[in-house]
Amino acid sequence: MGVFSTAGGTEPTGHEQVVFCSDQQSGLRAIIAIYSTALGPALGGTRFYPYANEEDAIHDVLELSRGMAYKNAMAGLDLGGGKAVIWGDPDRDKSEPLLRAYGRFVESLGGRYYTACDVGTYVQDMDMVARETRFVTGRSEAHGGAGDSSVLTAYGVFQGMRAAAEHRWGSPSLAGRRVGIAGLGKVGKHLTRHLLSDGAQVVATDVSQRAFEWARETYPQVDLVDDVTALITSDIDVYAPCALGGALNDDTVPVLRATVVAGAANNQLAHPGVEKLLDERGVLYAPDYVINSGGVIQVADEIEGFNFERAKLRAGKIYDTTRQILLLAQEEGVPPAVAADRMADRRMAEVGRLRTIRLRHER
Amino acid sequence: MGVFSTAGGTEPTGHEQVVFCSDQQSGLRAIIAIYSTALGPALGGTRFYPYANEEDAIHDVLELSRGMAYKNAMAGLDLGGGKAVIWGDPDRDKSEPLLRAYGRFVESLGGRYYTACDVGTYVQDMDMVARETRFVTGRSEAHGGAGDSSVLTAYGVFQGMRAAAEHRWGSPSLAGRRVGIAGLGKVGKHLTRHLLSDGAQVVATDVSQRAFEWARETYPQVDLVDDVTALITSDIDVYAPCALGGALNDDTVPVLRATVVAGAANNQLAHPGVEKLLDERGVLYAPDYVINSGGVIQVADEIEGFNFERAKLRAGKIYDTTRQILLLAQEEGVPPAVAADRMADRRMAEVGRLRTIRLRHER
Repeated sequence: MGVFSTAGGTEPTGHEQVVFCSDQQSGLRAIIAIYSTALGPALGGTRFYPYANEEDAIHDVLELSRGMAYKNAMAGLDLGGGKAVIWGDPDRDKSEPLLRAYGRFVESLGGRYYTACDVGTYVQDMDMVARETRFVTGRSEAHGGAGDSSVLTAYGVFQGMRAAAEHRWGSPSLAGRRVGIAGLGKVGKHLTRHLLSDGAQVVATDVSQRAFEWARETYPQVDLVDDVTALITSDIDVYAPCALGGALNDDTVPVLRATVVAGAANNQLAHPGVEKLLDERGVLYAPDYVINSGGVIQVADEIEGFNFERAKLRAGKIYDTTRQILLLAQEEGVPPAVAADRMADRRMAEVGRLRTIRLRHER
Repeated sequence: MGVFSTAGGTEPTGHEQVVFCSDQQSGLRAIIAIYSTALGPALGGTRFYPYANEEDAIHDVLELSRGMAYKNAMAGLDLGGGKAVIWGDPDRDKSEPLLRAYGRFVESLGGRYYTACDVGTYVQDMDMVARETRFVTGRSEAHGGAGDSSVLTAYGVFQGMRAAAEHRWGSPSLAGRRVGIAGLGKVGKHLTRHLLSDGAQVVATDVSQRAFEWARETYPQVDLVDDVTALITSDIDVYAPCALGGALNDDTVPVLRATVVAGAANNQLAHPGVEKLLDERGVLYAPDYVINSGGVIQVADEIEGFNFERAKLRAGKIYDTTRQILLLAQEEGVPPAVAADRMADRRMAEVGRLRTIRLRHER
């Protein structure tokens, strides 16, 4: 795995800038990857993770930053895609000097990259990072932070699911549909609420007993099943993967009874080709990064000065975007995942190009 | 070879920031390595070279930028150390879009890195890069450039050699000493002139017949010998390697008849340990990066607005610095190369630390 090109060395990775940062005294080793700034400053969180080696860290940050570029583009944000990883054990290595050294490197990029929380980093860490840089979101509410981003993530997924329902059945309403939710984490819980309000029947599973207890107490009308296999082979209309990545794979797709997939998990397609498998089985797949962008929409709103209603309005547009993508897929005869990538590429090229119309004497 | 640590993965490379930059349409693939900004913005040239692979490019830029940090520190400049490589064939790949894309990435670092010419890049290239960034030296004279930096490189080497002569023989004069110059390139030619003016006898060699012709015509008093082996085994007092790196190695040091080595070439020590070999043979080695810094002193002066006399004064101080290093080596019982590294590390730490005395409300 190289930085400029993939392992084989033939295919360019396509990233605009990849920045290795280190500060020996605090122990900081971070990589900030900027996939594209065509639409605006690259926004993406900072993952703090004990990678086995440098190559794994590089691989992760390159993949994640690319994903953010497509997500932010389809979220309609004026933001490019980026991501950062701090190579270390957050429990052992996180410290004020390390986080602040990291903040100085974020600042050194002059606003080409905005950071946020990700696995292993929390709002209080972003508050610390913010003591060294202006280019940070995901802060605590006391510092203008957007708060728990699972709220608009779930809202956006619900909107994306409604668009898929309309495309499939002619009406966006989920009333009377059986929706299977895999994963009753924060997003899964909010999504359950939206679905029940809309009149859907919810079937759910989780790996945690506490989630089951929550469901029994809060929404006794939810059907609980033992595991994901039971869920996807049951009589559901919509499957909503809301836990780990790779939910759609060579084992699950062939047995899936739902004809719509719309969930909150990242990287639902286990490998390239699964999108075709879904298409062949007649399953309508609402691309993950399109419908789960409510979270980044919520966090990105901090840049303007957080306003929940404005962010919610923007997340509501996930409905329109998903419809457009499903129509484009139909028109062009490609799976929705491919249509989404095309639409994102197009937006980056077409809107990015507008900067050739210069507004003043500037570089 | 990693970016954060050496091949074995045990020893950190120690670089502050390493920035991979790419622009697919112009074909740009560049790596900017900043070893340290403790003393000021990192200054170092841009090498344009067709590396076999990404690893070779990384290895080169990490080594070169580290070298620049030590060179700039010992040159007494308020500049840190950096270097950049553009991975490509300069004859085939160099273009306006590529150079300007590179310039935008230099600009994106906000002045943490200043670039300059190196192998494969010329003043006209820096003029092109300067159309996108303020942070560039090595420009054409019409644009305030310092011109041919071999002038002060040779002057500095001469001053370093004088300091070594004083340390060895009690007087800085080279009158009556036999000095062997390997390499009659631009620096070697200027050095010949300085030495002859001082009353030294010059013995020289080069791989090019044209250099021999130049010597016969310009300075018929110079003794010319066939090759480096003939030069270093002849009866010389001072050996001045002024061509490729690695001049001091396991083959040459044992047969060297000079008792002083002071030359313009970079990386004269072929591998770690050669400095001890020289010491054991009683050869006084004036560290390469200390005495060949006249070139970077000349180019760096562009940042203030080039003034040859000011730059020459500064290059003249190579005499004092070399004396100090040779004394320190004697006091601490280490080879001069080790003493130079220690003094550079000390300056980076002690002067860098001064920024803890804050001058205003700033980051």
